[in-house]
Amino acid sequence: MNPQPNRLNPTPEARATVEAWQAEFEQRLEAQLAVDSGTPGELLESMRYSALAGGKRMRPMLVYAAGLALDVESSRLHAIAMAIELIHTYSLIHDDLPAMDDDDLRRGRPTNHRRFGESTAILAGDALQALAFEVLAADEALSRQPAAQVRILRDIARACGAGGMAGGQVLDLAAVDQEISFDELETMHRLKTGALIRVSATAPAHLALAQPELFARLDRFGECVGLAFQIHDDVLDVTASSQQTGKPAQADAARNKPAFPSVIGVEASQRRAEALCAEAVDALQGFSGDTRMLRWLAEYAIARQS
Amino acid sequence: MNPQPNRLNPTPEARATVEAWQAEFEQRLEAQLAVDSGTPGELLESMRYSALAGGKRMRPMLVYAAGLALDVESSRLHAIAMAIELIHTYSLIHDDLPAMDDDDLRRGRPTNHRRFGESTAILAGDALQALAFEVLAADEALSRQPAAQVRILRDIARACGAGGMAGGQVLDLAAVDQEISFDELETMHRLKTGALIRVSATAPAHLALAQPELFARLDRFGECVGLAFQIHDDVLDVTASSQQTGKPAQADAARNKPAFPSVIGVEASQRRAEALCAEAVDALQGFSGDTRMLRWLAEYAIARQS
Repeated sequence: MNPQPNRLNPTPEARATVEAWQAEFEQRLEAQLAVDSGTPGELLESMRYSALAGGKRMRPMLVYAAGLALDVESSRLHAIAMAIELIHTYSLIHDDLPAMDDDDLRRGRPTNHRRFGESTAILAGDALQALAFEVLAADEALSRQPAAQVRILRDIARACGAGGMAGGQVLDLAAVDQEISFDELETMHRLKTGALIRVSATAPAHLALAQPELFARLDRFGECVGLAFQIHDDVLDVTASSQQTGKPAQADAARNKPAFPSVIGVEASQRRAEALCAEAVDALQGFSGDTRMLRWLAEYAIARQS
Repeated sequence: MNPQPNRLNPTPEARATVEAWQAEFEQRLEAQLAVDSGTPGELLESMRYSALAGGKRMRPMLVYAAGLALDVESSRLHAIAMAIELIHTYSLIHDDLPAMDDDDLRRGRPTNHRRFGESTAILAGDALQALAFEVLAADEALSRQPAAQVRILRDIARACGAGGMAGGQVLDLAAVDQEISFDELETMHRLKTGALIRVSATAPAHLALAQPELFARLDRFGECVGLAFQIHDDVLDVTASSQQTGKPAQADAARNKPAFPSVIGVEASQRRAEALCAEAVDALQGFSGDTRMLRWLAEYAIARQS
């Protein structure tokens, strides 16, 4: 049941690098959401409450790790990492709403609507989505490559729209109280969480003017990691305590929501996550830069305890 | 109480032009939201339900009229017009939600959440916002001027975010049951409806590489028209029937929501709207192209009966 530490690639350097990236990212996020006279105070407070609640920052870390593999300097990646995390934050706020998953607890604290009320929570999500695109479009470093900037914007918009994250959430809600197959479950997660994780890995490739083959490799990497990450999330839902995850334990079962362990069992779920992780690592060939951080994140996705 | 027809500039040509633009816009919107295998059926149906419900298409018309004044051909404006209308549609869906204005009727039909349920309505709004940015970023005509494309994206994202439309909606909800001043009411509407109308007028200027002075004139025009449009909306809420507007009559008063007529009276509201319209028309100087359509739309904003 517990991940075996030796399956991870626990180089202290890799962990230290991720922690440094995380710390710098937190500072940037804080600065991005600093008090601003143009925004009503309660709205900004609600946006800050969810965006600055910590978390693994998995998607921004993937952006920086993909940049490293492509030899793209990190200064050109900040807006991409920020925008994707703002979109992820907005999706968590909306997913928690009473009309959706109706969750009271997120990262060990009351969910946004429990703290600020439903209308402010909806609008904070809406405003975070708009801010994500503003950040991408207003970034000076990106604007030196406007054609790549536009393609990144397009890919991110597509990943979070009706054919991506928002569509996946519709399928997720429709699956409550339903028997669905393993394939349907994977399809749902490919949209709901997979699309945004995938674009985290591929977006930097536009800046590197990467060959289609490398783009396809990052896409495959992101697809596998996204699905493995979600399967591991479902496994943790069954096996970990609420204290570990900051969410109610066994929430999927309580809500009668299909999840990988209930469809194929815990052990088969873990094996599927491991196979996906291996496939992701296998895709990391032919890059000019350092792919070790991507590899570390792939392994972390299925080894983390929260 | 009734607008005087001779205050309008009822050239049959201007009306025919707007009607042709509207008809073409409806076709483009229908094509944009055509059935797409990548989107769950119920989500797409919900997006289509609200986006294709008709309406004045005031914002797209302003985009095309501003393009005419700037000699920008309409083929380069389609994505801007589309994106702004998709954002407007998403805002109407979210504003109508039970946690917001809790409206049952919109354009003479059940509101989106009354027809599709709250969760689908929230997600349809979310997906329409994402689609707006995808449309802007994926447009081939715009991509021939990527620097302008990015600036247009930035301005539109800003207009609909925390310091614009979403922020204004927070102020609007906070004003229920409160006494607020005329200035506070104008500030709220400058954000809630003004920002998006304003960017409809200014966005085409990026494509024309317009001088700052012309940009400022369009900005002033949009600001005045946006506010006049909203004041007239409030006046219609008091004076028009539900049948005329497709919305419940006197909804502001029923909801104890401050509105221009309740703050300064109906006649003073009408005078304020007329003064703003005159100021808007006054700003239309120094353009190389035809400003008559902008003028017609400014006058229409305060003369319309629904």
